[in-house]
Amino acid sequence: MSDVRWTRPHLLGLADLSASEINFILDTADGFREVSTRSIKKVPALRGRVVVNAFFEDSTRTRMSFSLAAQRLSADILDFSSQGSSVSKGESLLDTVKTIEAMGIDVMVVRHASAGAAKLVSEHVACSVVNAGDGAHEHPTQGLLDGYTLRQRFGKIEGLHVAIVGDIANSRVARSNIHLLTKLGATVTLVGPATLLPGAFANMPGVSISTDFDAVLPTVDAVNTLRIQFERMKSAAFPSVREYTSLFGLTSERVKRCNPGVFIMHPGPMNRGVEIDAALADSENSGILQQVTNGLAVRMAVLYLVNQARS
Amino acid sequence: MSDVRWTRPHLLGLADLSASEINFILDTADGFREVSTRSIKKVPALRGRVVVNAFFEDSTRTRMSFSLAAQRLSADILDFSSQGSSVSKGESLLDTVKTIEAMGIDVMVVRHASAGAAKLVSEHVACSVVNAGDGAHEHPTQGLLDGYTLRQRFGKIEGLHVAIVGDIANSRVARSNIHLLTKLGATVTLVGPATLLPGAFANMPGVSISTDFDAVLPTVDAVNTLRIQFERMKSAAFPSVREYTSLFGLTSERVKRCNPGVFIMHPGPMNRGVEIDAALADSENSGILQQVTNGLAVRMAVLYLVNQARS
Amino acid sequence: MSDVRWTRPHLLGLADLSASEINFILDTADGFREVSTRSIKKVPALRGRVVVNAFFEDSTRTRMSFSLAAQRLSADILDFSSQGSSVSKGESLLDTVKTIEAMGIDVMVVRHASAGAAKLVSEHVACSVVNAGDGAHEHPTQGLLDGYTLRQRFGKIEGLHVAIVGDIANSRVARSNIHLLTKLGATVTLVGPATLLPGAFANMPGVSISTDFDAVLPTVDAVNTLRIQFERMKSAAFPSVREYTSLFGLTSERVKRCNPGVFIMHPGPMNRGVEIDAALADSENSGILQQVTNGLAVRMAVLYLVNQARS
Repeated sequence: MSDVRWTRPHLLGLADLSASEINFILDTADGFREVSTRSIKKVPALRGRVVVNAFFEDSTRTRMSFSLAAQRLSADILDFSSQGSSVSKGESLLDTVKTIEAMGIDVMVVRHASAGAAKLVSEHVACSVVNAGDGAHEHPTQGLLDGYTLRQRFGKIEGLHVAIVGDIANSRVARSNIHLLTKLGATVTLVGPATLLPGAFANMPGVSISTDFDAVLPTVDAVNTLRIQFERMKSAAFPSVREYTSLFGLTSERVKRCNPGVFIMHPGPMNRGVEIDAALADSENSGILQQVTNGLAVRMAVLYLVNQARS
Repeated sequence: MSDVRWTRPHLLGLADLSASEINFILDTADGFREVSTRSIKKVPALRGRVVVNAFFEDSTRTRMSFSLAAQRLSADILDFSSQGSSVSKGESLLDTVKTIEAMGIDVMVVRHASAGAAKLVSEHVACSVVNAGDGAHEHPTQGLLDGYTLRQRFGKIEGLHVAIVGDIANSRVARSNIHLLTKLGATVTLVGPATLLPGAFANMPGVSISTDFDAVLPTVDAVNTLRIQFERMKSAAFPSVREYTSLFGLTSERVKRCNPGVFIMHPGPMNRGVEIDAALADSENSGILQQVTNGLAVRMAVLYLVNQARS
Repeated sequence: MSDVRWTRPHLLGLADLSASEINFILDTADGFREVSTRSIKKVPALRGRVVVNAFFEDSTRTRMSFSLAAQRLSADILDFSSQGSSVSKGESLLDTVKTIEAMGIDVMVVRHASAGAAKLVSEHVACSVVNAGDGAHEHPTQGLLDGYTLRQRFGKIEGLHVAIVGDIANSRVARSNIHLLTKLGATVTLVGPATLLPGAFANMPGVSISTDFDAVLPTVDAVNTLRIQFERMKSAAFPSVREYTSLFGLTSERVKRCNPGVFIMHPGPMNRGVEIDAALADSENSGILQQVTNGLAVRMAVLYLVNQARS
């Protein structure tokens, strides 16, 4: 840790980060994880700082996780949501965020349906910006918490083989995971229907693609099962739910073809019985609730570091 | 107080509590009531603890009351509402609450349209659960604040005769009141249209039922008038508003038939002119705003005690 | 400052305030402005006090500004919004605010679509009431932050000539500005289509009206451009957007007719390209984001002073 000093005021994606920067965040999260196990779950690190959740797209769990992370650092927290707001009155994204910033904000956590939104915001405000999901582009804190959870389970990420299964084309979770895993020395196999699995991914170092989930299973250390977005299933690119489950659902039968210690992950919320068997989510192989718990530590680390960079 | 130590990590209903446990909560609330009268309305009892309002059913006043109670104890507070959340994306109740809990929660305050929801949640999480209303089953903090307000008014509950008037069949407020009042030695008369007044209640010790409000009035010390739920009035079991008001509305004429010191209660929000005359709600006989004030003290006591039980 | 002691427990409008009272608020805001520039943006002035945002009409920026102001004073803050609340269950405004107050509130910030709502509330509660906008009547903290921003820019308000442009008839922002500016010795010209510019305004001392924006421009020190409310444009009194922009839009051409140091203000959210040219909002003449920043200091001052008056 001593050879890296954090200098980035924003966290917009994992594509830009070096392996040592990613490890530095994960190490910082290690330091914060213990705070959440205390009866007094609070450190004064960001006392008197203001974190705003600027969510232009619905989210409950990510918003709650950032709110709790900010409170645990003793920051003040303010929620902005575009429902019933100036945005619905026709104000532009940039006017909205510049107005929020003018109130005296230290960190703006931005979620938006358009790829690049967080970066655009960061170019127009003086406060720190953390990307909490921008379209199908990146969801860096999800990538970090997945990486943290894998490191916690296996000791290190280098050398692991991770399958990411689902609608890869539209998944920001997949993209952030791919960047983190390949930078830290894991190999990744992307699995899904060909229509949802752009061939371009296969050109990335450390990444393969496959439409045959069963063939991939014997060699994986972890399976990260993406949520099926029913709202997207009207698209012609999408198979029926029944077909999807039969080909790409993580079932108990499929898990039997894996290494017995295979680690099961899901970013939530789950459609039990669709992309994952109900029983598997609660099995000993599942790391799904650890992902949620680790999300707090990772987000505390990120809020803390981007603030440090500006101090 | 010295002969009881609080050991229950959850408050799911008043049916399970002994009279001495109920009195212990009310005595603890007495200690907290004074805090709300200070200019600095805060004690450090739950500093660094996290209380989540997990509301799967709309509520403003109960949510605000729990939020303020938690803040007055210096806890951090997080609001979850099922609108726009993972629940509307099809996630199950248990997955939602287990996800929230995994973020590191101390107390989950649960409101849900289904009877038994809070109990179900309590069986699947390690944090404390407080029932803030589960279907037509129980609303224990409402029962406690009603009991607290009666005790404040009359010095003790033993020997009182309380009428509860309205749609008893569908009222969780009525059920929690019945348990508290009968355990503490009051007698209860349930009053309402026969279709909304299940005969089974009459078998409970200390409880009578009546469809003749006027006959009950001369002997009551307090009348707890339930809110009419217009959304339920489409049901064939429900009389018209006009008929309801004429038979079961608490009017000035009816109050004249009571003991002059009769105490008028209502859980709110009121339909003035329907179940209660506008003028009565503001009369000297009314304890309606004291109920709200006492709700804070009672909820502080409950949040404090369930936390104690786990420490 | 030494010759005024603040004695008003409510801030309902600027019409009632004396010039020295207005200056006293602005001077108090000066003292708080510095707090927002610190890394620890907090003073303990209202620790343990409770501020409720009782918003019966949608607002994001005003609500956020009051929330942050309260947090910066270390108050606890609670949000009430009428969506999904008892209000939508038919409860009256007064029952709602009396219920909220009974929970133990120090300051209630009230926004409501009806003129006089904040005053009505103040007559029925014991806590302080701050008007955050009541129909077309007043929005006093907006008037104060506009006055503060003008004083910051020009050193003093006395002798300034300010044009307020737009739908004057329906603007609470205009009314609060008119009161402040004329009391502090500025002259005001109200500009807009005749149908939106009641002649009665011309009888107020220090106020003129004009339907000819171009004729007014050469003599103004500042232009306060009101937001066009598209929802009101269905009314026959309203010209088309195209016609409005051509006659009353603040364009770069119009600014060239002004004094080079002309100060451009807008209460937000802006319709860029309608009532104001996109480029002007970001020009050196614009004080629009300073208005937002100063809103925090002014609201901190107001929350602080109304509390003082009751202590």
